[in-house]
Amino acid sequence: MTIAEKIIINDVGPRDGLQNQAKTLEPQQRLALIQALLNAGVKHIEVGSFVSPIAVPAMRGTADIVAQLPTGDFHFSALIPNFKGYELAKVAGMNTVSLVIAASNSMNKKNINMSNAEVLSFATEVLGRSRSDSMNTLACIATAWECPFEGLVAEQTVIDLCTTLFAAGAPEVVLADTIGAASPAQVKSLMSKLVAQFGAKRLSCHFHDTRGMGLANVYAAVECGIRKFDAAIGGLGGCPFAPGASGNVATEDVVLMLNQMGYDTGINLANLIQAADLVAAQTGSLTNAGSTKWIKRQIEKGVFKLNASS
Amino acid sequence: MTIAEKIIINDVGPRDGLQNQAKTLEPQQRLALIQALLNAGVKHIEVGSFVSPIAVPAMRGTADIVAQLPTGDFHFSALIPNFKGYELAKVAGMNTVSLVIAASNSMNKKNINMSNAEVLSFATEVLGRSRSDSMNTLACIATAWECPFEGLVAEQTVIDLCTTLFAAGAPEVVLADTIGAASPAQVKSLMSKLVAQFGAKRLSCHFHDTRGMGLANVYAAVECGIRKFDAAIGGLGGCPFAPGASGNVATEDVVLMLNQMGYDTGINLANLIQAADLVAAQTGSLTNAGSTKWIKRQIEKGVFKLNASS
Repeated sequence: MTIAEKIIINDVGPRDGLQNQAKTLEPQQRLALIQALLNAGVKHIEVGSFVSPIAVPAMRGTADIVAQLPTGDFHFSALIPNFKGYELAKVAGMNTVSLVIAASNSMNKKNINMSNAEVLSFATEVLGRSRSDSMNTLACIATAWECPFEGLVAEQTVIDLCTTLFAAGAPEVVLADTIGAASPAQVKSLMSKLVAQFGAKRLSCHFHDTRGMGLANVYAAVECGIRKFDAAIGGLGGCPFAPGASGNVATEDVVLMLNQMGYDTGINLANLIQAADLVAAQTGSLTNAGSTKWIKRQIEKGVFKLNASS
Repeated sequence: MTIAEKIIINDVGPRDGLQNQAKTLEPQQRLALIQALLNAGVKHIEVGSFVSPIAVPAMRGTADIVAQLPTGDFHFSALIPNFKGYELAKVAGMNTVSLVIAASNSMNKKNINMSNAEVLSFATEVLGRSRSDSMNTLACIATAWECPFEGLVAEQTVIDLCTTLFAAGAPEVVLADTIGAASPAQVKSLMSKLVAQFGAKRLSCHFHDTRGMGLANVYAAVECGIRKFDAAIGGLGGCPFAPGASGNVATEDVVLMLNQMGYDTGINLANLIQAADLVAAQTGSLTNAGSTKWIKRQIEKGVFKLNASS
């Protein structure tokens, strides 16, 4: 390719990542992590969640963080589990919210204590309000390949859910392998069908590295035409309903692979590793990324350099 | 697929893996590892190297190991760096030898102190002798994507090398990303050309996980039609000329992914993890496999069970 095609990385570390760490960070620490990501050129970041601070202490103070975010060509989103969360996000000044609809009934019940029908009704209502509020909404289909309680999810279930969400006005649907269970063959199978039906531009993917297949799944989705991915700095994350699961696919692994494949992620790996080191120090957790050691050696050798702006 | 298509896994842990570990194992320990792999259903194993025990102490006593290998439907190979090694392998009773031809001159010089022309002359001569000796020969093209000294390798160089090796009678050529530098886009680009020209049946691939892309590369090659892969139990390995490089792509990672993709590897994951635990105990090194934690949880839960024969 002569002009590099763009791929968007949405770092969900400050939300999906930190929410599943043993150690709870202070809002100012979470803001520092967001700033480190911005400094690396990450422009899409899930900054937090508007959820009860009693239910999820790790996301306490998200509104304070939002109030301190810089303005500019940035795409910040926050998770909302219910209408109250939606209103709080709106009041805080968010332009984008994300909501999670699991493809399986059991996961919806465990995750937000709603049935499939209730979740869909909630999502449809939020999508309607979003339009009148000029709020952007990312509709995330969780357990799109496999549910920890119900097992494999039928592709038709996910296709039907996408149809419903797009019909309700969703600008974008995120297909999430919440517990990191999919193989690249399963990713190719589902994503090729969804891309054929809905087009690649309205779809993005979210993978976890539980079985070591995270990057292979990203590659399989890229081959299907997907050009937007969730990832978490340092491979942070997990799933409360998949004990011991590894985290999200690591942003640095994804960026290294996509940059090397000739795509333009706009992200500087040397700066990104600073963000990974920061969150490792903040949480006391080692990074889960497979590429860290190699990237650090390139930084030492001067092959990968910090952005001048940093 | 109704009848699962077979994919062959050739475990190079007892050679490429152990040769690059800090700790040298005794021949009986290496034999125990080979037996653990056989017990898991691995039928293709690189059991050692017929090389000077002074130059490579880790491979001392390979003939003793070969003398104790079981007979049956097994495909044992041993690396030979020169004619002396070839003769020793023949005397020891090996049916298959592997030889390494780097795609770059500098790597050949560093690896076996021969120029490209000398290595090709050696390979051609071995392939000729192999035919009269009924010896099977695996011709491995090292640094097929990138050389640590010369950088990116031109695809045409590798295509020409394959042409020469097949013309000289090579039954099979192994494309090796010796330092773990290739991205899946580069794997797809080269392997699709090689498969178009030579057919997938005579080609196999060998990946390292240095940049975390090992499994993505395996998947890319599978998509090109490749049905035989090198891998090393526990992700053992490295490269003396790529300091700090992670090891070979881990057998357990590859098997988990391919089994889940519906291919028949013939390998039992519960037994395979026993082999990984054994070599971790033997070498004092932790496993590098990304899937180990998840596989172990499935074993605890009884999802993956040991073979009755074990």
